[in-house]
Order: sequence, then structure tokens, then C-alpha cells
Amino acid sequence: MSATTTLKLEQGLDPKNWETLRKLGHRMVDDMFSYLENIGEQPVWQAIPPEVKEAFAEPVPQEPEGANSAYEQFHRNILPYPTGNIHPRFWAWVSGTGSAGGMLAELLSGAMNSSGHGGDHAAVYVERQVISWLKQALGYPAEASGLLVGGGSMANFVGLAVARNTKPGWNVKTEGLANRENPLSVYCSTETHSSVVKAVELLGLGSNGLRQIEVDGNFRIRVDHLRQAVAADRASGKRPICVVGNAGTVNSGAIDDLTALADFCREENLWFHVDGAFGAIPAISPRLRPLLRGMERADSLAFDLHKWMYMPYDVGCALVRFPQHHRDTFAYGAAYLNSQTRGLAGGPEWFSHYGLELSRGFRALKVWFSLKEHGLQTYQALVEQNVAQAQYLGELIAGDRRLELLAPIPLNVVCFRYRGNLEDEATMKQVNQEILLRLQESGVAAPSATVIGERFAIRVANVNHRTRREDFDILVREVLRLGSEISGGH
Amino acid sequence: MSATTTLKLEQGLDPKNWETLRKLGHRMVDDMFSYLENIGEQPVWQAIPPEVKEAFAEPVPQEPEGANSAYEQFHRNILPYPTGNIHPRFWAWVSGTGSAGGMLAELLSGAMNSSGHGGDHAAVYVERQVISWLKQALGYPAEASGLLVGGGSMANFVGLAVARNTKPGWNVKTEGLANRENPLSVYCSTETHSSVVKAVELLGLGSNGLRQIEVDGNFRIRVDHLRQAVAADRASGKRPICVVGNAGTVNSGAIDDLTALADFCREENLWFHVDGAFGAIPAISPRLRPLLRGMERADSLAFDLHKWMYMPYDVGCALVRFPQHHRDTFAYGAAYLNSQTRGLAGGPEWFSHYGLELSRGFRALKVWFSLKEHGLQTYQALVEQNVAQAQYLGELIAGDRRLELLAPIPLNVVCFRYRGNLEDEATMKQVNQEILLRLQESGVAAPSATVIGERFAIRVANVNHRTRREDFDILVREVLRLGSEISGGH
Repeated sequence: MSATTTLKLEQGLDPKNWETLRKLGHRMVDDMFSYLENIGEQPVWQAIPPEVKEAFAEPVPQEPEGANSAYEQFHRNILPYPTGNIHPRFWAWVSGTGSAGGMLAELLSGAMNSSGHGGDHAAVYVERQVISWLKQALGYPAEASGLLVGGGSMANFVGLAVARNTKPGWNVKTEGLANRENPLSVYCSTETHSSVVKAVELLGLGSNGLRQIEVDGNFRIRVDHLRQAVAADRASGKRPICVVGNAGTVNSGAIDDLTALADFCREENLWFHVDGAFGAIPAISPRLRPLLRGMERADSLAFDLHKWMYMPYDVGCALVRFPQHHRDTFAYGAAYLNSQTRGLAGGPEWFSHYGLELSRGFRALKVWFSLKEHGLQTYQALVEQNVAQAQYLGELIAGDRRLELLAPIPLNVVCFRYRGNLEDEATMKQVNQEILLRLQESGVAAPSATVIGERFAIRVANVNHRTRREDFDILVREVLRLGSEISGGH
Repeated sequence: MSATTTLKLEQGLDPKNWETLRKLGHRMVDDMFSYLENIGEQPVWQAIPPEVKEAFAEPVPQEPEGANSAYEQFHRNILPYPTGNIHPRFWAWVSGTGSAGGMLAELLSGAMNSSGHGGDHAAVYVERQVISWLKQALGYPAEASGLLVGGGSMANFVGLAVARNTKPGWNVKTEGLANRENPLSVYCSTETHSSVVKAVELLGLGSNGLRQIEVDGNFRIRVDHLRQAVAADRASGKRPICVVGNAGTVNSGAIDDLTALADFCREENLWFHVDGAFGAIPAISPRLRPLLRGMERADSLAFDLHKWMYMPYDVGCALVRFPQHHRDTFAYGAAYLNSQTRGLAGGPEWFSHYGLELSRGFRALKVWFSLKEHGLQTYQALVEQNVAQAQYLGELIAGDRRLELLAPIPLNVVCFRYRGNLEDEATMKQVNQEILLRLQESGVAAPSATVIGERFAIRVANVNHRTRREDFDILVREVLRLGSEISGGH
């Protein structure tokens, strides 16, 4: 192709008329503010009608439709059908609420479009700053290295990757795991999140290499069983490398005895990783931090900010106590990535030397903006509030003999079910499953489901800054009404 | 803590006065539009002054500072110091430009704050739709599975993880890689991106398990050498599982003979992964697609949308030809993640069964919005334009005997250096490094550096929709001026 002929009509993605697009931006701001301000009056969730689903089957647009048309379609087909986690009565999975300020920060990072891989520009310094803030807020050692990631799954992967490369005693990075007779093993409780299993699988250890230890009545790892398992494995030629402690299990919010695990790991020369996806966050509160004692001794710590710090999706964080371990696992050299002492490629050591990703967005900005806007004190108060609200819900449940609490409430997760006069386990499962679905389908509330000791549980995970006590009053009232209706008055 | 006492003063992150925050949102829209509209008049990059760096050392804010104050600080300390990739004369690394429409889409996804892990809500259908669009646009088989990810590094990791779990002939997911005498080996050229090395290391194969094969004079993998290496490895007890083809090497944009690699992989029963971080994108253009013939036969394909599709950071994509392989690698079951046939947890199979991450943001929205806004035709024209512009720059370089082209220009990457009358390699390196740094420090242009056959190269990677021919005129003029100045007239 000849350059001179082709380049006659150079074009770009910038609008021909900036004013028109700017006007659309203002309309969006108005609409999005109204959306968030009134979200509590909307159904928490609603099914997408078939005609809307059809729109999602349309082929790739060949011709430009324009930003105004795209926005109309968004407004009609997408905006009314959110996940629901922005609503005051959403408590499914552990999905945080986001915030209006966080939304604005997304606009700003979309404008700058900075790359967080490295170099000498603001996004890099902002990320370094918020990682420092998070260490301060959680009481984790200041000398630790850190990295913002997409979420807890990646943060667990980072921690376990460093464990796998640091502990075995040979160069895993270059030599890999084959030709070794002593398979590496990792330990955690049976209540551990699936992302830990996934990380162990992806790292090549095999899920058989993950030993899931029984829990006590409070769903905390049995440290005595852990000790036996490690001893037995060593005796049988396995090579234990790591223990994963839970700071807030996903099922019930249980917190392992992290001090006992830290002691055990020191004695046995094992890596101590803590999965604190949401449950690490209470450490920002002086009142709640004692629950997490021992977490500050972890060799690596994983947690999310889009859960219990209410930041917009997606942002989590991995911290590693000794930066050299962290760096040795991920750093590399490449001609086209040579950093310089001056210019664009100068600046601090690249974040891409501390994680899987090279290209990375400027997700640090929403963290920075949110903490500036609200201050750590506000987050402390809100986390305490969510814990107190969970207690409040627990009291409502305990106070009604038609309801049954299925697990203790150490933090913000409440597992319960409708019993009414039902006796049969199978029927109870059926009835509670139907209660849950109708709660969602009616748009009244969105808890999710789990299984606690083979019992089907309605599960409320409260990482919602919009929730008020009245919302739990409504939940309980509706569960009782639906339970009675579905079970035919039983 | 008693629920009734603590809950007296319930609060949230919603503003006390919505109007104040809404007003700030409007101000931001105006400012960000002005910023983008005039970005070409700003320096492409500028060093952050020491007093601004000091602000990034401040400790975590305890008290709320408010959104207005946070924005003032952003405006003063962050906005003036972007990476630079939004500027018409930024060609460093392979960092795309973003767009004003993409920025607005970030605002919208920040408002909805949807989680892309799974469930029955719009974000899931939008992601399914854009993956379908991308397959259509690139000519990749419609039955393939896909996943949006943070970028090419993760997309390569996904493809190689599926290769590692699919090819060996035992259950790698459960059994892992230990206790196997035949180490797995993966093949690629010496020009392959560092993220492939990193993926191989993280997957437990060890970088020794990655065999980097020599390239020809056009920086394409020597398929004859590959054939010999695989045969020799099989003979010596290794277990070849995968070949990685380059669709656009990062150094020079070279495209491996993908048809030959596809044929070879079929003959040898090897997984064929293609790293097309930026170089897969020209397949959207009927004129350029022939360059990538064979890519459609890849078992897995990795590419970015924040590079040559100009979408805001971060978004890439992994495609896998046979969904079952993809799913078998990442899927899991967990009580709290049971999906339902109705309600919030209904809908199509979860994306978290196809990748490492569970929590995932709504990055599909900016892809959807951008393709609706501009249409595929616009992207085709822009990719062709960037290729033609690279040819134009090549002609400028070839037309001046003081400059030297260091590699062919098959796509959009131009590697060159100033020669003037210099003879000595060490001096040339020094002079060109200084040219590069002064280009950046003066704010005129931002190419980056690489090494081509031990020669230091100024490298221009053009994935910029704001670039015009005149920008390359300016670049060449400045390189000549600086080269003469630095080399003292040589």
C-alpha cells in the first residue's frame, strides 16, 4: 500500500464536534447521579426480558452508530439490569456497593488512560502511595511490597506464587516442578475459598497438593489436625511449603486462629499466606483489629477493596512481607522494557516486576480518591456498622422461633433458614431455595445461598454501605411471609 | 458490641448533598473534555517536580477531605503527569490512546458497578456479546470460548494454562507436575514477549521448559529449527506440548509464518497458541488479514483491546477454540457459588469458570460502547492508517542518509537510529539513548527503546489514533537536530 495515497484522509476517534459529545457527558452525569440517588426505590434485581436479550445477539456493528445512539441503547437495555450490588438490600456473594465518588474517579482514570505497568508518571506514584496507605490502615509492616490487582483471586495467586518459588529450595522459576520426587503441599481449612484451590492448580501443584484440614464448630481450622497432617506428610516424603489462613471465610466469616498459624509456620518453616478477601478489612478499625491478631505476621496477604472498602470493581491488593521474595518471583528483563534513569521509562521499579500483568490500568486512582474523599475514619465506622448490622439481623433471627441461625456471626456474614414447623431436611431445602429465588425475583432483597453442614442456607454477606437496619426488618418480614406461603402455612 | 447502641447513627458513603457532588461531576466532564481536546498542545511527557512527589508521600488521610478537595489535588498533582499515551506523538511500548467515548463508558460502568463473574444480569450478556463480536471481527471460529481479561499477559497465561492442562495426558489439574520424569516443553521464537516466559514460569514449567528458537532475517521463527528442536527434545525424553506463534513481535512487529506453525502443530499434536497482543488486530481489516493467515487455526489466541483497538486501560481477550478445554482448566464447584436456574444466580455459565479471576469488573461495557459508537469500519480504517503511517515514517528514514532503519516494517513498529557520521557502535548507542531521553524530556515525542541485533534502537510503535503524518515529520526533524547537537555535528 502506498503511504501517500492512503494517508490522504487521516482520521481518528476524536469527535468531529467536541461539544456534542461533551453534552452527552453532562447528560450521563445527570442520569447516573439520579440512578444512584434513587437506586433504593428500584427492584434490587430483575430478570432481563426476552426482547432485551435478543439485542445482545446482534452481530458486530459495521457502521458507526454514534455515541448518542450507543447511550440510548445502554439506557434501555443495560442500565436497568445491574448485578444489584448498588442496592441497599443486596447481600449476595460478597459484592461491594461502589460509591458515587468512586464512579467519578473512573471517569478521571478513563480520561488519563494511564498505564500502571511502570515508568515515571503520576499513576505509578499514586499506586505506591495507596499501597503504603493500605499497609498503614491494616497494620501490616511498612517494608512490605504490594501490588493492586483485579481481586482476591489474583491476590491469592500472587501470594501462593511467591510461596511456591521461595520455599522449595531449588530455583522453581527456571527449573519448574517436574523431575522432583517430593511433591509440594499447601494447607488450608475445608472452608477456604475456591480461588485458593484454583491458584494451587494453576501453579502446577495439583489440587491433590492442597490439603484441606477440618474445622471446629466455629468453622476455624483445627490447628492440631494441621500439625498432624504436616507431620504425616513430611514422614511420607511430601514437602510442605505453605499454610493459608482465612481472615473471614466466605461461608460464614470465620477467622482462623491466625496467631497460632503464624507460630506454627515459624516453627515449621512454612510460608504463611492469609486470604483476607473481605475479612482483612476490619483490621482498619481499632475495635475490630483484635479479631485478626496474627494477620500482620503473614508472609503474604490478599484482600479486596471492591468488597468491604466499597470501591468500584475491580480492585484488590496483594502484600508480601519481604519484597525480595516478591520480586524474585515475577521480575524479568527484556530489551524493549529496559528502564532508564531519566525520562518516561525512569521512576521506581516497575509494578510488572511484582505480578503477572504488564499492562495495567490506573485502578489506584479510585482508591486514592475514595480515601481522600471519605478518610479512613469513615471506613472504620462503616465496617463497624456492617458488623453491628449483622448482629442486629442475628438478633432478629434468634428472636423468632420460625427462623434458625446456621452459623455463628463473627463478622458480617449471616447464614440462616426458615424452619416454620417443617421437620424434614429435604423439604426445608426446597422451601428455603424457593424463598431465596422469590426474594430475588420480587426485587425485594438479594441474599445468596450456601450450604452449611449439608444444610441449605440463606446467606447474607453485608459489605453494603447503603444498608440500614430497616432493610433487615424488611428481609426478615419477607422471609417469614414467603416461608409460610411456600410451605402452606407450616 | 451491642447492636442497638452502635446503630444509632447509621451512615453511608452517599453524599449528604447530592447536588454538590453532581456539580463536581459536571465540572469534571468539562475539564476532562478540555483536557482531551487540547492534549496535543501539552508536552507528551513531563517529569514530576519534587514538591509534587512529596505529596505522594503523605500518610493515609484519617479525616474526610471531601470530593472537591480530592479533585483539586488530582487536578494539581496527577492530571498534568499522565503516562503520555493519550498524546498524538506518543509511540512508546505499545500503549494505546483511549478515547473520549471510552472515558464516558468508564463513568457508566463505575455507576452500575456490576460484577462480571457470572449471574443473570446485563454485564454478563454484554461480555458474551462483545466476545462474539471479536470472534467475528478477527475471523476466529464462532464456537470458540472467550474471556475478557486485564491484558495480553493474562490472555497468554490463560491460553498456556489450557495448553498445559490439555496436552500432557494426565490430570494436571489434580495431580500437578511433580513426580513426572518427562518435563513439558513449550516452543516460541527468541523474539517472543516476556509475558510468555512469565506464564511458563508461573505455570510451573520453568523457564528452562521454554525453548526459544532462532529467527530469520525478518525476525520470524525458523520453522526448520523448531522442527529439529521438537524432534531432539522428544528423543531426549522431553514432552513437547505447545508452540507459541507471534502475531506481531513486540520488537519489530514481525509475524511468524502462522500457517506453517499450524500445520506443524497438527502434525505433531501440539497446542498452537498465538500471542497477538497488538498484531492480531489487523485481521479486522480485509486488506491486512492475509498477513495473519493461519491465526484462525490457533487453539488459543491472546490479544489486547487497549492497544490497537484504542480502548481505555485495561482490557484484553483470550479465545480458546474448544470451549471444553477452556472450561476443564478453570471450572470448579463451590457451595456458595452454586448457580441456579432462576433468579440472580441464573443465566449462562459463569465467566469465572473460564479464567483465574472470580470478581471481575464490567470492562465489557467500554468495548461494547466503543464498537457501537465507531463501528468496526472505523477501526479497520484506523489500523490501516497506522500501518500506512509506519510506512511513511520508514520512507522518511530511508530517505535520509543520517538515519538508519534497523528492522523491516511489516506492521506498525519502526526501529531506527541516528547515524550521522558516527562509526563506533558504543558512541551510536550513547548518542541515540540521549536523543531518546531528550525527545521525552522536551515533551516533543515519546518513542521508547529496544535492542535489535545488539544495536540500540529508537522504537516507534504506532497504535495511536491521534497521530498524523506531520507528527512523524516533527519526530524526524527533532531526531536529526538532537543527533547533530549531541554528537557535536557528526
